[in-house]
Amino acid sequence: MRLLVINPNTSESVTALIRRAAEAAAAPGTEIVTDTAPWGVPYIATRTEAALGGHVALEMLARHQPGYDAAIIAAFGDPGLGAARELFPQPVIGLAEAGMLTACMLGQKFAIVTFSNALTAWYRECVAWHGLEGRLAGIFTLTESFRDIGDVQVEKEEKLVALCHSALAASDADVIVLAGAPLAGLAHRVADRVPVPVIDCVAAAVCQAETLARLNPRKATAGSFARPGAKAATGADEALARWIEGREGAVLPG
Amino acid sequence: MRLLVINPNTSESVTALIRRAAEAAAAPGTEIVTDTAPWGVPYIATRTEAALGGHVALEMLARHQPGYDAAIIAAFGDPGLGAARELFPQPVIGLAEAGMLTACMLGQKFAIVTFSNALTAWYRECVAWHGLEGRLAGIFTLTESFRDIGDVQVEKEEKLVALCHSALAASDADVIVLAGAPLAGLAHRVADRVPVPVIDCVAAAVCQAETLARLNPRKATAGSFARPGAKAATGADEALARWIEGREGAVLPG
Amino acid sequence: MRLLVINPNTSESVTALIRRAAEAAAAPGTEIVTDTAPWGVPYIATRTEAALGGHVALEMLARHQPGYDAAIIAAFGDPGLGAARELFPQPVIGLAEAGMLTACMLGQKFAIVTFSNALTAWYRECVAWHGLEGRLAGIFTLTESFRDIGDVQVEKEEKLVALCHSALAASDADVIVLAGAPLAGLAHRVADRVPVPVIDCVAAAVCQAETLARLNPRKATAGSFARPGAKAATGADEALARWIEGREGAVLPG
Amino acid sequence: MRLLVINPNTSESVTALIRRAAEAAAAPGTEIVTDTAPWGVPYIATRTEAALGGHVALEMLARHQPGYDAAIIAAFGDPGLGAARELFPQPVIGLAEAGMLTACMLGQKFAIVTFSNALTAWYRECVAWHGLEGRLAGIFTLTESFRDIGDVQVEKEEKLVALCHSALAASDADVIVLAGAPLAGLAHRVADRVPVPVIDCVAAAVCQAETLARLNPRKATAGSFARPGAKAATGADEALARWIEGREGAVLPG
Amino acid sequence: MRLLVINPNTSESVTALIRRAAEAAAAPGTEIVTDTAPWGVPYIATRTEAALGGHVALEMLARHQPGYDAAIIAAFGDPGLGAARELFPQPVIGLAEAGMLTACMLGQKFAIVTFSNALTAWYRECVAWHGLEGRLAGIFTLTESFRDIGDVQVEKEEKLVALCHSALAASDADVIVLAGAPLAGLAHRVADRVPVPVIDCVAAAVCQAETLARLNPRKATAGSFARPGAKAATGADEALARWIEGREGAVLPG
Amino acid sequence: MRLLVINPNTSESVTALIRRAAEAAAAPGTEIVTDTAPWGVPYIATRTEAALGGHVALEMLARHQPGYDAAIIAAFGDPGLGAARELFPQPVIGLAEAGMLTACMLGQKFAIVTFSNALTAWYRECVAWHGLEGRLAGIFTLTESFRDIGDVQVEKEEKLVALCHSALAASDADVIVLAGAPLAGLAHRVADRVPVPVIDCVAAAVCQAETLARLNPRKATAGSFARPGAKAATGADEALARWIEGREGAVLPG
Repeated sequence: MRLLVINPNTSESVTALIRRAAEAAAAPGTEIVTDTAPWGVPYIATRTEAALGGHVALEMLARHQPGYDAAIIAAFGDPGLGAARELFPQPVIGLAEAGMLTACMLGQKFAIVTFSNALTAWYRECVAWHGLEGRLAGIFTLTESFRDIGDVQVEKEEKLVALCHSALAASDADVIVLAGAPLAGLAHRVADRVPVPVIDCVAAAVCQAETLARLNPRKATAGSFARPGAKAATGADEALARWIEGREGAVLPG
Repeated sequence: MRLLVINPNTSESVTALIRRAAEAAAAPGTEIVTDTAPWGVPYIATRTEAALGGHVALEMLARHQPGYDAAIIAAFGDPGLGAARELFPQPVIGLAEAGMLTACMLGQKFAIVTFSNALTAWYRECVAWHGLEGRLAGIFTLTESFRDIGDVQVEKEEKLVALCHSALAASDADVIVLAGAPLAGLAHRVADRVPVPVIDCVAAAVCQAETLARLNPRKATAGSFARPGAKAATGADEALARWIEGREGAVLPG
Repeated sequence: MRLLVINPNTSESVTALIRRAAEAAAAPGTEIVTDTAPWGVPYIATRTEAALGGHVALEMLARHQPGYDAAIIAAFGDPGLGAARELFPQPVIGLAEAGMLTACMLGQKFAIVTFSNALTAWYRECVAWHGLEGRLAGIFTLTESFRDIGDVQVEKEEKLVALCHSALAASDADVIVLAGAPLAGLAHRVADRVPVPVIDCVAAAVCQAETLARLNPRKATAGSFARPGAKAATGADEALARWIEGREGAVLPG
Repeated sequence: MRLLVINPNTSESVTALIRRAAEAAAAPGTEIVTDTAPWGVPYIATRTEAALGGHVALEMLARHQPGYDAAIIAAFGDPGLGAARELFPQPVIGLAEAGMLTACMLGQKFAIVTFSNALTAWYRECVAWHGLEGRLAGIFTLTESFRDIGDVQVEKEEKLVALCHSALAASDADVIVLAGAPLAGLAHRVADRVPVPVIDCVAAAVCQAETLARLNPRKATAGSFARPGAKAATGADEALARWIEGREGAVLPG
Repeated sequence: MRLLVINPNTSESVTALIRRAAEAAAAPGTEIVTDTAPWGVPYIATRTEAALGGHVALEMLARHQPGYDAAIIAAFGDPGLGAARELFPQPVIGLAEAGMLTACMLGQKFAIVTFSNALTAWYRECVAWHGLEGRLAGIFTLTESFRDIGDVQVEKEEKLVALCHSALAASDADVIVLAGAPLAGLAHRVADRVPVPVIDCVAAAVCQAETLARLNPRKATAGSFARPGAKAATGADEALARWIEGREGAVLPG
Repeated sequence: MRLLVINPNTSESVTALIRRAAEAAAAPGTEIVTDTAPWGVPYIATRTEAALGGHVALEMLARHQPGYDAAIIAAFGDPGLGAARELFPQPVIGLAEAGMLTACMLGQKFAIVTFSNALTAWYRECVAWHGLEGRLAGIFTLTESFRDIGDVQVEKEEKLVALCHSALAASDADVIVLAGAPLAGLAHRVADRVPVPVIDCVAAAVCQAETLARLNPRKATAGSFARPGAKAATGADEALARWIEGREGAVLPG
C-alpha cells in the first residue's frame, strides 16, 4: 500500500518530522511518500495562510495522481480536505480529522494542545467544520514565541507536558490531541508523563489512511462528495486544471 | 465613499450583473469599483472551486490596496472572507453574510433559493461557518441544467418564482434570500410575485458595506481577526505576498 | 427618509442620548424622530419591565403611523420587536439586533458589555431569541450601582473601558457590543482605547434602518410575520387597538 | 391549598373550560380560583397578542395577591411567565411549561397538536424559551377556520384526533400535547382513540402547581429570578405598580 | 395510590433515607413501598455500576408487578429508566428526571450539587439523555472522601451548603438540585441557608409520580415507548423474563 | 495481535456472520476471537434488551481478561461501551462507533440503514451518546418482519439496496452505514449497487481496533475514563465482580 503524505507548508524540516512519525506508525508493507508544498508559508497558522494551503494541497494531490492508495493532508486544520475529497478518487484524510476521530474512541471529550495561540481560531473553525464541537473539551496553547518550527517540539517539550496537565485540570478532557504537524512524534515521548491517552496525529492519520485503503470504498457518484462536473479552470496549475476540467484521463495512462 | 466589489469568478457577464445591481443599490456619493477574477472558474459551485476562489479573492483585494473604504466578495459562499477580514484594514463583507444578516432583520427564518443544486453543499457549509444554521429554513434549488451563467436569471425567472413558493410551502421561512451573484438584480423584478420579502444579496451587501464604512470601526489588534504576524510567502502573487510578509508599507505610499 | 426611534423607557435623558447618537450616525437626508414612553419604567432591566416595555413599544409605533419609513425600538433587549414586525407594514429593528448583526460582520464572536448586572438575564434571553448564542462570547457587566441613568456612561467610562479589556482577556471575543440605550454615543469616545471594533448600537441601528428602508422590502403576507387577522382588542390603547382590530384604514387618510 | 388560574384572554367561555378541567384534575382540598383578563383579545395567537397577554397576566397576578399558594397562567404560550416568576413570591406555572414537562416524563419526544396554524410561531418561540426544542417532535395544526373559540374543541374533535394520528405518522413523537386553553378537557375524551399518552395542559398544570405548592420552595434572593429592585412604574395599573415599586407591603396587611 | 420506590443500590441505609423523604412528601392516601436492590453495588457512581443498576432496576420493577400505580427509580442517574418506560404499563420516573424537570419550573438554569466527583460523568450523560443540557448551569461536587454512604448528608451538610453558594457564584444557576439518593431529605434542612430554591429529588419524584398516576396516561402502543415485541430472554431473572417474553399474563392473575 | 469480538446477543448464527466479516477485514497477523452472549436475547433491538446486553458485555469482557489487545462490542448500539472503556485496560470499541467514525472520513453526513424499525430509538440514542447527531443524515429502516436473524441480510438484500437509494434521495447523506451485526458482510456484496461508500461496521471495527492496538494508548488514570475505585459487587458474575472489586490481580497471574 502506498500512502501519500503531503505537507501543505513549505518547511522541509517539518516534512522530515512527519515522515519519521509516519514511517514509525505504518504497518509492514505500507510505503510512505512525502512531499512539501512548492509555494506558501513555512507553517500555516491563520485563515489567510490556510487559504493558500488549501489551494496548494489540491495541486500537490493532483500532481501525484494516480500513484497512491490514500492520502493525508498533514496540517492540523485540514486545509483543502473537503475539496480533495470531492475531486479525487482515492480516500483523503486530514491530520485534525484523524487525530480527533481517533481520540473519540478513547474518551468522551478531547483537548487540543498545541504550541502557539496563533493557531486557535483556525483550529476552532476546523473542529466546527467536522461537527465535533460537542466532543471538544477546549483548545490549549502556549503563548510565548519559539525558535524554529522544525525544533519547537524539542524546545517546548516540558512546557507542553505542563500544558497537558493544565488542560486536564481546567476541563473535562479524557484524551489529549497533540495538534500540529510540527509536533509529529512527540506524543510517544511524553505519553508516560500525561495521565490520559495522548494522540499523535500523524500516527493516527497513517492508521486511518490504511483503514480506508483496506476498506476500499467506492468513489461517490451521488451525495455532496460526488466529483463535480468539469469546468474551465483558467490560470490554474496544469495538474490541478486537468482534474477540474475533467481531462485527466486524456493524459494519464491507466 | 469607494466600495470595491470583487467577483472571484472569471465570468465578466456576472461581473456586469453585479455592477448593475450594486450601482442601483448604492447611496448617492458611493462609487462602485468592480473587478473580475484573473484566474479560476466561470462560477464557483463546489468546495474545490471555492478553494481557488478564496485564494484569488485575497489576491484581488491585495492588488486594489489601499484604494477603497470597504470591500465585497461577490460570491454567495463568501470565499476567502475570514482570511480577508484578518489580513486587510478595511471592512470586507461576503455576499452570503450580507444577504443572510439582512434577512434576519425581516423574519425569524430565511430560505436560500438558487438555480443549481451543485451549490447546496458549499452554501450549507457557508451558513454553518456564519453560525446561522438556527435561522435557516432550508436551501432550495432548481435541479435542471441552464444555458449560460450570465443569463440564468432570465432563463429561469419563472421557475425561481415557483421555487420561492415551494420553499414557503415546505418550510417555515419568513424571508427568501436569492442566492448567487448570477441572480443579482432578480429580487427586484420578482418581489411582487413572492409573498414575503426577497433579498437581493448584492443590494444588501452594498448597504452593509456602506454601513461598515460609515461606522468606520478600527482594525482589530486583538482577537482572532487581528492581523497575523508577518511570514514568508514563497511563490505567492506579489501583491498578496507583500501583505502576508508585512511589507506593504515599503512599496505603497501613504 | 424618516426614521422613528422610540425609547420604550420613560427617561427623557436617555432619549436625548439616543437622539444625539442617532443624528450623528444618520445619512444626509435622514430625519430622526424620537419619542419617549408615556408610561413604564425609567429604564428596562428585567423580564417584568420588558413585559411593560414591549406593550408600550407597540402603542408608540401605532401612534406614529404612518409617518415613518422604518422604526427602531431603542432598548437593547428589543422589547416588542417580534410583535411589531408582524403588525406594522414598515421595517422595525431592535437595538440589540442591529448591534449584534453588525458585530457579526466584524468578527466571529462578540462580547456584550454593559453597566449593570441586572440586565444579564434579559439580554441572554434576547440573544437566544435572535438565534445568536453561537456568536456570543459572553455578557460582561459592571456590578456596582450608578448615580443616574442619563449620566451612567460618563460616570462609568473608565470602568467600562476596563471591562472591555477584561472581556477580551476572558473570552474569544473579536468585537465588543456596548449594550443599552444609556450608553448611546460612548463607543465613539472609547474606540481608541479598546483593541477591537466597538459597536454603538444606536449608530448601528440607524444604519440598518436606513438599509431596510432603502431595500424597501414588501410586507409579508405569508410566513410567521404576515399581519395577524383582525381581532377585538378590548381595553387597549386606541391607536394600537385600531391596528389589532384592522380598522386603521378607516381613520387614517392615505 | 388555593390555586389561582388566570386566563390572559378575555373569553369567559374559555375560562369556563379551564375551570372545569382544573377542578376535575385538582386533588381533594385544592380550591381553584379562576379569573378572566379584564382587557386584551379573546384568545392569544400571535406575538402581538402575547405582548398584551403578558402584561395583563402580571396585572391579574398582582391584583390577587396574596391570596394563593401557586398560580397558573392558562395560555399555552405562557405569556408573562418569566416576569411573574421573578416578581411574585409564589410559584407561577405556564400551561405550555406544565404540559411539555409532564410529557417529558412519558416519552422522549412530544408533538404539540392544536386547532389553528396562527399559533405556530408563538408556540415555537415558547418551546425555545423553555429550552425544550430537543424534545419537540413537531407542531401540528389544523388549517381551517373555526366557529367559536369556546366550542372549537367540540367542533374539531374528530379532526384533532385525525391530526394526532398524522403527527405520529410524520414524526418520532412518543406523546401528544394538546395545546391551547380552548382544548382544556379534550384529552380525556380522546385518549382511547390515540395510541400514545395525550396530555391535557390544564390538568398537568394543576398537578404541577400542587407539586410546587407542596414542595414550598423559597423565593429566590439570588439568580435571575430574584425579585428585581424597586423602580418607579409610571402609568401602570395600581396593583402591579405596587409590586414593581416595592410598596406592596405598605398597603397589604399580612 | 401505591407508589413503588426502588433503590437500585444495595444499601439498606440509603433505602431508609429514601423512604423517610418519600413519606414526608407523599399526599394523604399515598402508600410508599420501597425495595432495595438484591444485587449490585452499595451506591452507583460510574457507568459500569449504572450498567448493573439498570439491569437490577428492571428486575425489581418486574417482581413487584402489578402492585403499584407508578414507580420511581431512586438513583439520580436514572438507571434503566428508558427501558422500564417501554416495558411496563405503569408510569416510571427517575430521580434525576423528576428533580431536573421540577427545577425547570422554578428557574431557567439549575445547578446539580452532589457529594462525590466520581458521579460527574454519569450525571452529565444523564442530563444529556434527558435533553436538558441547555438548562444545566453546571455540576458541582465535593472532592474529598466520605465515611459512610448512609450518613454522608450529615457528615457533609456544611460543606454542601458552601458548595451551593460556590455554584451560584460560579454559574448562572437559578435553582439547586441536590443530587443523589443519599442526600434525600437534606434539601429541607438547608433550604434557609441557600438563597435559591433547593430541590429534594425524592420529594420531587413522589409528587411527579402522583401527578402521573392521577393523570393516568394510557400505555403507548405507538412511538418509541410502545412495548417491545416478545422475545426469548435466556438466562434472565424469571420475573423479568416473563415480561420480555410476553408471558406475564399467563402467570399473574390480573 | 489478538482482537476479542463479543456478540452481546445469544445468536450463534450472528456470531458466525461477525466472525466471517471480521476475518475478511483483519490484517495479516491479527487473530480474531469471537464469543456469544451466555444469556440475554437473540438480538438486541430495544432499550430493555440493551440494558441486558450492556451487562452481559461487561461479563464477557471480564471473562476473557487479560487475553486480548483490543475488544469490539459487536452490536450496533454499543451496549456497555462507556462502562467497558472505564473498567478495562485495553481499548474497547463499539460497532456503531467504529462504523460512524469511519463514515465521517468519507463524507459530511452518513445515513444509518437497517432491517427493522424496532431498532430506531435505540440507534438514535446511541448516535446522541456519541455526540454525532450533527453528522447524521437520518435512520432508515425496513418496516416488515423477517424470517431469521441469521439470514436477514440474504432475505432482504434487494430491499436494503432499495432503501439505500431512498435514503440518498430523502436526505443529504454522503455515506451509508449498514447497521447491525446481522448485516455483517453485506456491504461488500452491495457496494457496486449503491452510489456512495457503504460501511460494513464489523470491517470498520476490526480496522479501528487494530488502529488502537497499534497506537497502544495508555489506560487513563485521570478524566472520566479512569478506572473507578474498587467497590463491593454483591451478586455479580465472579469474573466481573473481580474487576469491580479491584481484585482481578489476586487471581490472575501476570
